[in-house]
Amino acid sequence: MTAPTPLDATPLGGPVFILDRPAHGGNIGSALRAIHNMGFRHLRLVEPRQFPHEDVENYAASAGRFIDTIELFPDIASAVADLNFLVAMTRRLRGQRHHVVTPRQMGEALGPKLIQPEQRIGLLFGTERTGLETIDVERCHWICTIPTEGEVGSLNLAQSIMVVAYEMMMGSGKGRAVVHNPTTDDTLATADEMNRLYAHMQEVLFEIDFIQPDRYKQMMGKLKALFNRASLDHREVTILRGMLTEVTAHCNRKMAKLNRP
Amino acid sequence: MTAPTPLDATPLGGPVFILDRPAHGGNIGSALRAIHNMGFRHLRLVEPRQFPHEDVENYAASAGRFIDTIELFPDIASAVADLNFLVAMTRRLRGQRHHVVTPRQMGEALGPKLIQPEQRIGLLFGTERTGLETIDVERCHWICTIPTEGEVGSLNLAQSIMVVAYEMMMGSGKGRAVVHNPTTDDTLATADEMNRLYAHMQEVLFEIDFIQPDRYKQMMGKLKALFNRASLDHREVTILRGMLTEVTAHCNRKMAKLNRP
Repeated sequence: MTAPTPLDATPLGGPVFILDRPAHGGNIGSALRAIHNMGFRHLRLVEPRQFPHEDVENYAASAGRFIDTIELFPDIASAVADLNFLVAMTRRLRGQRHHVVTPRQMGEALGPKLIQPEQRIGLLFGTERTGLETIDVERCHWICTIPTEGEVGSLNLAQSIMVVAYEMMMGSGKGRAVVHNPTTDDTLATADEMNRLYAHMQEVLFEIDFIQPDRYKQMMGKLKALFNRASLDHREVTILRGMLTEVTAHCNRKMAKLNRP
Repeated sequence: MTAPTPLDATPLGGPVFILDRPAHGGNIGSALRAIHNMGFRHLRLVEPRQFPHEDVENYAASAGRFIDTIELFPDIASAVADLNFLVAMTRRLRGQRHHVVTPRQMGEALGPKLIQPEQRIGLLFGTERTGLETIDVERCHWICTIPTEGEVGSLNLAQSIMVVAYEMMMGSGKGRAVVHNPTTDDTLATADEMNRLYAHMQEVLFEIDFIQPDRYKQMMGKLKALFNRASLDHREVTILRGMLTEVTAHCNRKMAKLNRP
């Protein structure tokens, strides 16, 4: 694992997250963790109340090793001085003629640009209690508002940062998740294997009197639909056939015992 | 504001968020807040360490009034007994043949179904330190993994819940945000108003010797591009014309003073 590159030695490779006077160290640590989870690096604090603070470390978890990359500023003006595109995170629109976007729209619009070193995007988050002040919204090119649905409209600061960092990462096309669809990604059992399974199943179900000769087609149709829907692989067919074999073998063993009194 | 409807009196109107043995009351409060922010209601806890606890209240913020809707269970089996589609939130896949999805895919697939009262979807979150146990992943129909990009792979519990709740809301089509695009949503100034603004501007810029007669077309072209890009509305044109008027008037006033010594 390599140490993070100092900010002044590298072009900004992603947005700069700027927190105005955060009150809680836990929010700073959570923010740092969310930012690094999503592949970003730049966190700036304007006059934090608890920094340094043990809560920052506790909430940063394994991102704690990046705490010394956090930059401190005495006011928002100096925190944004070297950035050239600013977005205010707020849900109070104050009737201004700003372009207002959702995090998803912002990620889709700005995400692809994050790889251009000349793009210095700043995302400005207000205080936990009162949000951003009008004078700071006015510095910004866009306003971004996180959609909500519930009656409770005010989001937790660190959770807002997570949603925005997540959408910026998704928009950049860099988000990685192991996605797996067993019906298309695995080698499924062949039709021949499945037919032999169904024949075996039918034989055993007849034997244990579960299905009657006059109704077996309907029942087997239901079972085939069920197992086809489950998209079995070779190993799973082997397991099921082993079970079917044991149903018969078990019964035969019991019978054999009875015959040897 | 009406009190929340008790769970037993209403069909489940959204997914049930189930937290296995959460260690920190703050995570429970943050989870409750995130769930209600995104319009959902159902939080179940399996053997929480800190509950009730002042941190739950502190982190729940205004969602604190829903704390008494949280349901407690002695184990995961009883917490999921009445649900019929379970999703394990984990990034450890354990080589199982599960359908693995991202929160976005899950929101798109399950979101529209959230309005059907017979769909009882449970989202299962593991402990902060060790995540879900294999036996509990095996209970589930799907695995959901949040994409990450950074070196730091383990997400904060409450932030994971926020991303999932956010995507479930987005997938349900219920997310509301005031989105505003000044270039298309506002009534812009008419072409005639803009032409009169540019004529006024040109006149004043000539007068203050900012542009020369032989180069004015090029300069006016640049200024027109700039102001057209800004998509001015009627009010903004009035402000700019007022400024232009004052440039001239100010100079005239100064001149008048000089002539009256």
